[in-house]
Amino acid sequence: MTAEMFPKEKTIDLRKKHIGPSCKVFFSHDPIKIVRAKGQYMYDENGVRYLDCINNVAHVGHSHPMVVKAGAEQMELLNTNSRFLHDNLVQYAQRLQATLPEKLSVCYFVNSGSEANDLALRLAWEYTGHKDVITLDNAYHGHVSSLINISPYKFHQLANAEQSKSVHVALSPDLYRGNYRQDHPDPATAYADDVNNLIQKAHEKGHKVQNKNADKLQQCVCARVLPYQCTVPLPHRHVHQAGGLFIADEVQVGFGRVGTHFWAFQLQGEDFVPDIVTMGKPIGNGHPMSCVVTTREVAEAFKNSGMEYFNTFGGNPVSCAIGLAVLDVIEKEDLQGNALRVGGYLMRLLEQQKEKHPLVGDIRGRGLFVGAELVRDRVKLTPATAEAQDIIYKLKEQHILLSADGPHRNVLKFKPPMCFSEEDADMVFVSCCLESSKNHILLSLVHYSKCL
Amino acid sequence: MTAEMFPKEKTIDLRKKHIGPSCKVFFSHDPIKIVRAKGQYMYDENGVRYLDCINNVAHVGHSHPMVVKAGAEQMELLNTNSRFLHDNLVQYAQRLQATLPEKLSVCYFVNSGSEANDLALRLAWEYTGHKDVITLDNAYHGHVSSLINISPYKFHQLANAEQSKSVHVALSPDLYRGNYRQDHPDPATAYADDVNNLIQKAHEKGHKVQNKNADKLQQCVCARVLPYQCTVPLPHRHVHQAGGLFIADEVQVGFGRVGTHFWAFQLQGEDFVPDIVTMGKPIGNGHPMSCVVTTREVAEAFKNSGMEYFNTFGGNPVSCAIGLAVLDVIEKEDLQGNALRVGGYLMRLLEQQKEKHPLVGDIRGRGLFVGAELVRDRVKLTPATAEAQDIIYKLKEQHILLSADGPHRNVLKFKPPMCFSEEDADMVFVSCCLESSKNHILLSLVHYSKCL
Repeated sequence: MTAEMFPKEKTIDLRKKHIGPSCKVFFSHDPIKIVRAKGQYMYDENGVRYLDCINNVAHVGHSHPMVVKAGAEQMELLNTNSRFLHDNLVQYAQRLQATLPEKLSVCYFVNSGSEANDLALRLAWEYTGHKDVITLDNAYHGHVSSLINISPYKFHQLANAEQSKSVHVALSPDLYRGNYRQDHPDPATAYADDVNNLIQKAHEKGHKVQNKNADKLQQCVCARVLPYQCTVPLPHRHVHQAGGLFIADEVQVGFGRVGTHFWAFQLQGEDFVPDIVTMGKPIGNGHPMSCVVTTREVAEAFKNSGMEYFNTFGGNPVSCAIGLAVLDVIEKEDLQGNALRVGGYLMRLLEQQKEKHPLVGDIRGRGLFVGAELVRDRVKLTPATAEAQDIIYKLKEQHILLSADGPHRNVLKFKPPMCFSEEDADMVFVSCCLESSKNHILLSLVHYSKCL
Repeated sequence: MTAEMFPKEKTIDLRKKHIGPSCKVFFSHDPIKIVRAKGQYMYDENGVRYLDCINNVAHVGHSHPMVVKAGAEQMELLNTNSRFLHDNLVQYAQRLQATLPEKLSVCYFVNSGSEANDLALRLAWEYTGHKDVITLDNAYHGHVSSLINISPYKFHQLANAEQSKSVHVALSPDLYRGNYRQDHPDPATAYADDVNNLIQKAHEKGHKVQNKNADKLQQCVCARVLPYQCTVPLPHRHVHQAGGLFIADEVQVGFGRVGTHFWAFQLQGEDFVPDIVTMGKPIGNGHPMSCVVTTREVAEAFKNSGMEYFNTFGGNPVSCAIGLAVLDVIEKEDLQGNALRVGGYLMRLLEQQKEKHPLVGDIRGRGLFVGAELVRDRVKLTPATAEAQDIIYKLKEQHILLSADGPHRNVLKFKPPMCFSEEDADMVFVSCCLESSKNHILLSLVHYSKCL
């Protein structure tokens, strides 16, 4: 099989010519060409193997044979839209439902996390009759225009960003760098009060301008691995009391990645049930698919608007076959258990690094969804942005793929395929030590979500 | 291979339980379960073969072996995001570009027609600095919230629809039922004047409320198979003069379906070049993928906003491999030529029906994108909605799949896979005659786009 069609320089030239310049590559100074991948490893055009610490989309491992087989066999048989009955669709919905609280029983299949979050907004708008949204600072919920509006991570990038009047940005419950930190006596209540204040302010404003839209609020929260002290149920109560709905965005963190639970919102306890859950990225191991799950009440309200919902590709038999195979592999290979074990091991290695190196300011995360925030000064918390970039490029030379994120781009992100092993984690740290001995900078490898 | 997992009744029950009630099935009184498909034929769980006259998404034929092979082989090798260099992406962009005017050279790969049209709006908003959109009455551009706003076909379905102030609905240039008809001396100018009037009104309103956003306009037109007399270049000039951009939505009609040209906008002549073209449905023969193509100027303006554009699944190597295979099959099997030939044959058969049966009011379309509007009265144009439904159900009994659309749901739609043959067309008419002899109603089988 031909590994590549063009020499790398030609690929780069054609990309410059024909692909939108807003679409960035990893390692822009010297991008990587990947021609094949298996499990947690990717291979470039020269056969060089890279350890992949960043591709959470390749959830059960790149090109997993069970997933490939399921997709290929179904493609050969039938791929059509959901206006025809098909067992894959209902079987997959049933399987997904079994992982969720009973109340969350109605599915809509779409093609991307962005489509899922946009539909979640439409469901909530229709159910509540109101347009206001509370979102968290630094959150990212997708690239379609409605989601740019509720993604401070994105709209802060714009020179002349204009925040929509119906979008209310709540404080990010960040105990390391946020408004209320570890030393606060009760940060959970403090952050929840912020949400409540936003609701009150919107109400007041609503009364002033007679804008009924602002009477009630919906909360759209990126389902983050929240610090223990900042639990979600409190703001959830505030939102419900105001007549709003709670949307849990599991696009990044669902499907067992957090280790102890299948869904990240379940970290908040059994009593906490969001009104809408959105899924994406890992759901199809790279195949374009996603899902919105909600309650019967919300689904019926949406139906009663009188508008049909049709998604050309959503819920097609191939996507569902692939989704089913992903669930099978997670179970069969106990990948949730692996995330718990290897994630724990990784955290311990990182804690050791933190003890040794002042550059590592904070380590946080759950399962195989972990971040390490780098700072130049542990008191002032000066972001070590350049250092984070430097580390990432140096690791690339060691054939380890990592990236940095967060508002200051100083948080090393670690969200590998779920088959990542303790040996892989060791390999990262061996490479790090090599680097640090040469460069006198600390390497501490971890990932953090955009909104943490 | 197991054709089905559940008996049909169980499938229906599970669907009611777990799939959003806004998601409709075809033939809701007695939906069809399809378990496999090949070419222009679909097969139910009992092996009954249906002739497919409606699935334009299965563009080169259901489960085409070349497309399946390309997808399966690439899935086995690598499926990852476009932040890594990959030859499939640039090769596919290059191949697509070769079908378009030279100026349209920059691609963005996304996952659905809706994502494509939303991105087109974002590109236009960023380039012009203005938010106003002109859309056509009855147009449908997608299901995400920004597109519902510009889709009268959708927002008219809502009980309490509220049209956004920045959306201006132009008359649909319908020579049969529209404001200016066949008997009008110059309908092209009349419809173009309507666009111009909308621009002027928005300007006036803009000046009054000092809303600079309304100073300039963009036009978003569903790329329709326009009646000859209503050409696009005239409104296009008006929009450009007002500083707006012209978006051609080729999601339904692109990739050779119109027969004489690869893109429907090319029917307007070589000199007509839209600023943005969006693609979808047929692009991947059912695989979730789509594309936006624009000019360097628009792409650079979007980049200069400072916001990165990243689409997790868009442009992945599997989608591009499938897209390339679809282009190969269109070429190798001369499907564009087939659309021209068989579409012409179909139109002739339909014209014969029209001569014989007063129920057929109008026949229109190009290539294998054809519609027949049914009316109870050729002067009053009373929509024959119930008759259209009746025909569709009766054809279903003959194992022929057809649907009705349009604002009155009285337009029979005909947009089969592009491998549809003259024999298939004959089969439809044989079935029709059988039906009509029994029921004394005319059957005239054709398709029409939602916005025609």
